[in-house]
Amino acid sequence: MTTAPTTCIIGAGISGLCAGKMLSDYAVPHVCFESSDRIGGNWAFGNPNGHSSAYRSLHIDTSKHRLSLKDFPMPEHYADFPHHSEIKEYLDDYADAFGLRDNIRFRSEVRHARRLPGGGWEIRTGDDQVHHFDFLVVANGHHWDPRLPDFPGEFTGEAIHSHHYVDPTDPLELRGKRILVVGLGNSGADITVELSQRAHDNRVVLSTRSSAWIVPKYVMGIPADKLFATIPQIPLSWQRRLLRRSPALMTGRPERFGLPTPNHHFLQAHPTQSQELPVRLGSGDVTAKPDVARLDGRRVHFVDGSSAEFDVIVYATGYNITFPFFAPEFLSAPDNRLPLYKRMFHPELDDLAFVGFAQATPTLFPFIECQARLLAAYLRGLYRPPPPAEMRRVITSDEQRFVAHFNDRPRHTQQVDYFVYEHEIRTRELPAGHRRVRERGPVPLAGRVGSRA
Amino acid sequence: MTTAPTTCIIGAGISGLCAGKMLSDYAVPHVCFESSDRIGGNWAFGNPNGHSSAYRSLHIDTSKHRLSLKDFPMPEHYADFPHHSEIKEYLDDYADAFGLRDNIRFRSEVRHARRLPGGGWEIRTGDDQVHHFDFLVVANGHHWDPRLPDFPGEFTGEAIHSHHYVDPTDPLELRGKRILVVGLGNSGADITVELSQRAHDNRVVLSTRSSAWIVPKYVMGIPADKLFATIPQIPLSWQRRLLRRSPALMTGRPERFGLPTPNHHFLQAHPTQSQELPVRLGSGDVTAKPDVARLDGRRVHFVDGSSAEFDVIVYATGYNITFPFFAPEFLSAPDNRLPLYKRMFHPELDDLAFVGFAQATPTLFPFIECQARLLAAYLRGLYRPPPPAEMRRVITSDEQRFVAHFNDRPRHTQQVDYFVYEHEIRTRELPAGHRRVRERGPVPLAGRVGSRA
Repeated sequence: MTTAPTTCIIGAGISGLCAGKMLSDYAVPHVCFESSDRIGGNWAFGNPNGHSSAYRSLHIDTSKHRLSLKDFPMPEHYADFPHHSEIKEYLDDYADAFGLRDNIRFRSEVRHARRLPGGGWEIRTGDDQVHHFDFLVVANGHHWDPRLPDFPGEFTGEAIHSHHYVDPTDPLELRGKRILVVGLGNSGADITVELSQRAHDNRVVLSTRSSAWIVPKYVMGIPADKLFATIPQIPLSWQRRLLRRSPALMTGRPERFGLPTPNHHFLQAHPTQSQELPVRLGSGDVTAKPDVARLDGRRVHFVDGSSAEFDVIVYATGYNITFPFFAPEFLSAPDNRLPLYKRMFHPELDDLAFVGFAQATPTLFPFIECQARLLAAYLRGLYRPPPPAEMRRVITSDEQRFVAHFNDRPRHTQQVDYFVYEHEIRTRELPAGHRRVRERGPVPLAGRVGSRA
Repeated sequence: MTTAPTTCIIGAGISGLCAGKMLSDYAVPHVCFESSDRIGGNWAFGNPNGHSSAYRSLHIDTSKHRLSLKDFPMPEHYADFPHHSEIKEYLDDYADAFGLRDNIRFRSEVRHARRLPGGGWEIRTGDDQVHHFDFLVVANGHHWDPRLPDFPGEFTGEAIHSHHYVDPTDPLELRGKRILVVGLGNSGADITVELSQRAHDNRVVLSTRSSAWIVPKYVMGIPADKLFATIPQIPLSWQRRLLRRSPALMTGRPERFGLPTPNHHFLQAHPTQSQELPVRLGSGDVTAKPDVARLDGRRVHFVDGSSAEFDVIVYATGYNITFPFFAPEFLSAPDNRLPLYKRMFHPELDDLAFVGFAQATPTLFPFIECQARLLAAYLRGLYRPPPPAEMRRVITSDEQRFVAHFNDRPRHTQQVDYFVYEHEIRTRELPAGHRRVRERGPVPLAGRVGSRA
């Protein structure tokens, strides 16, 4: 057995936990730094590190059947669409089952991660301690740094990003108010539905720039994501064409509910999953508006020439991909662009990997598990990525397949079809990487730094 | 033109308003007694006469296209499923457009309606005045007298009937509570969905005896009731058989969401219309239970042997048909049984008619309008019902067609298929009644009482 590189994982959310579990399986020595006092990241509701975007009512939009980690099936008694508290419990059970906490340093924020000349990493934590590792795994998530739109003018009411939204009374009093929700992603839809409950006595308007195809959570009583799967062996463009009319057949065209016509075909942008929003729109409890043109005091002008006054704006406008521990000139993701081989490997940095930086459809957890397996194989010397030039070529062609048909928006830079991705990693990339190891040996990762934390 | 009978209408809800409008059209002199200070009955949210069962969040479950009165289309700008406030506004506009308020005596409760020997009516109002009329139209509605189940044992928590439910804080504080909702009709589903919003921090259990087939409000973005209509020319039993699987194809079988298996086929009992309940159940925010077996302090035992403690029970268990102004021995509707010819005429009492006493599927308002037209034709001498024996025969055969396939429950005694009903009244009953008038003359209704209020 070859010596494995000492490895640092940043973050103990779903990505860091999966990575840690797989590294333990493959006997790769590692330490996971977690800024919070708990695991779970985004799924730790009210996470004291401020990195959870979960609102009180949040249920995951992936059914438990699709969400379940292959190594650790979700309990049968879970609801089809588990509540965030159940996801957190599941992650706690996962951490306990595999002893993951032993390798986690809690309350240890990574302040700075510096790549050493010749490779290896110097990690400075919040307590100003310095640690050295051969390899760095970035798993700090991409749903915690709020992205705000840049509308002309100024709004003098209250404004909040969905990241900070907890419920109708926390942190803002959102009852008896005129509320504008900007953004028709899943958070925007959920928050709109919640705030438009008549009991809260709000007037709720939903503004969307791109509009969205709305898909139900259930089709014929079956979680929709159990019914729809892409088939890796058939060209994706054909399958997308075949599915193009499916939202209209399930939920109906967005225009039926007063939403603008989407500026994209179905599957050219994230669909929004909501069984409830169409009924709220169709009941007149929510009014739909197109994009915001400009802000003027309490008044918001929309691009259709209409305007209205509001007390509060809720920006459900997504997140930035941010690496606060990297010097910006070293590595950043402007406009969320982060070209990585298999969404994991930087062509020029062989001792760095990213886990979980993808918008995997229809499910993220098994996608992360799949990435963690590839990572562990790499660190254990069982997998070798292709040379940098080949990596760059594949990055471009993968973007063409997974992202090019999407709107060119920060939101869609990370799109991946899970079924295709997993199939390719399992049937092509792992065997090919194994072949490369046999031909050229593993990438020499271990021993790059002398000392270890 | 024959002299028309002086007519008393009890109630200025949708039924009394429609009757009044049609009687005005047909120049039948009439007075409508309304106990409240306003029109609208059930649709006058917070009606001071206590006869509105509308909760704050109530949207009608019939789409405006189906709900619209033929004589007075709903405004285009209305939502597909109007809010109760819109329905009230619509009824106000209807009353104004046809000058209906002129014939309404507000704040005039009918205390007693006594049929005089030889016919005609003595009406005693709340102010102890006595009025005389040739004819009486009962339009006091059947959604205001709460029906409560008779469970063994006693519940020591708070209990409320859905009739009195307004919102999560009115009249009971229903936040942070363990709540049992009994009944899976539309009110039960709506209230369950509302109280199970995470923001209210409740634990909500839904108990149902018969279970229910749940149908969506929208199918492919189109109000479901626009898509489904029975065809009067095809036997109803065939159509019911054809539609039997449709809820499973739309919403899915109730068991998928943990509900008991319905004790009836689809259309053998009222389906429940809710787009949101299946998702709430499938998200674990609501737990389903079968019927209540017995009450024991705070604990409720269910027929499956399970039990749980609750702070509050909400009984969404329907309504009694009640005529407080009739002496019970004269006329009542035990177990909601009220055998009437065309759900309007009492075979033995030719100067009495009922309007709106039906559970018309899929829409009530045009059904009432159709009844009002038959009523006006009768009062104007253009229509004559068949002889009592024939009426009784038809009542029995109509029950066989419309009601017999339903569960034998107080809830289903009034079931009518609107499309079939309207088609038969228009194409058969009105012409036949006209033929009877030509053959035997009109029923002599006018002048039965000498004086008029």
